[in-house]
Amino acid sequence: MLSKAPRYWDDYEVGQKFDLGSTSFTADEIVDFARHYDPQSFHVDADAARQSMFGGLIASGWHVTAKLMRLFVDNYVDQRTALGSPGVDEVRWLKPVRPGDTLTAWVECAGKVPSRSRPEMGIIHEQWQATNQKGELVMTLKGTNMVRRRPV
Amino acid sequence: MLSKAPRYWDDYEVGQKFDLGSTSFTADEIVDFARHYDPQSFHVDADAARQSMFGGLIASGWHVTAKLMRLFVDNYVDQRTALGSPGVDEVRWLKPVRPGDTLTAWVECAGKVPSRSRPEMGIIHEQWQATNQKGELVMTLKGTNMVRRRPV
Repeated sequence: MLSKAPRYWDDYEVGQKFDLGSTSFTADEIVDFARHYDPQSFHVDADAARQSMFGGLIASGWHVTAKLMRLFVDNYVDQRTALGSPGVDEVRWLKPVRPGDTLTAWVECAGKVPSRSRPEMGIIHEQWQATNQKGELVMTLKGTNMVRRRPV
Repeated sequence: MLSKAPRYWDDYEVGQKFDLGSTSFTADEIVDFARHYDPQSFHVDADAARQSMFGGLIASGWHVTAKLMRLFVDNYVDQRTALGSPGVDEVRWLKPVRPGDTLTAWVECAGKVPSRSRPEMGIIHEQWQATNQKGELVMTLKGTNMVRRRPV
């Protein structure tokens, strides 16, 4: 949870872990996301999905990532100091996510470096992890965020 | 464009480029995606976005990625041979995407390796790139896809 004081780059400690909470997936939501953004048959067509290697409908990896991003924004990002992200690395979709699944996620502060070009900000690296209701690791990601430094 | 014969792992050639076509962003769509998945103020609130370092509303990086995924599925993936993806690497959001922007994207086959554990499939690595209407490089990504091999 965020404290009431703004959380600056200076306040992050490498090794700190933050719970992101949980998010669940319905079949309707899986199909709706995939119709817009990833209309492969195992994401949008329950019958075709049953015949596929997955044996049933699974969420697009991008849908899983987007729903974890929502948890990240709601439970970790301090919007008073957040300055966006230049990208992410090593996104891994390790297990299928199916209708009815609930994922629980957390992030760990994996590194911090001052910005060389912009003294008012610094870079935070985070390791994301999410498990399903069986405790299986479902997704991991290495994130990078730009965060405002404490004014001097 | 896909030929009418199924496109197997065996048919991919390293260095081949594929046009993915174009996709445009409206303010409504930017805000709608972000309200669901990335409700940071510079993605959902035009007034707050004007006061931010971005000077106006910008699309969530995850929205940009999802819309490029749609182009990838519509214009590159052969669903008869596609077996999903274990993840992606080096997602880079290089320039903000704003309402009215049109992105044009392509992928290059960057590598192919047989699967060690599953002889019926192989791995394809792709480099994604997208430029905006000014010709600026906006996003890059290294993708990995599992593709069925030609039956022997």
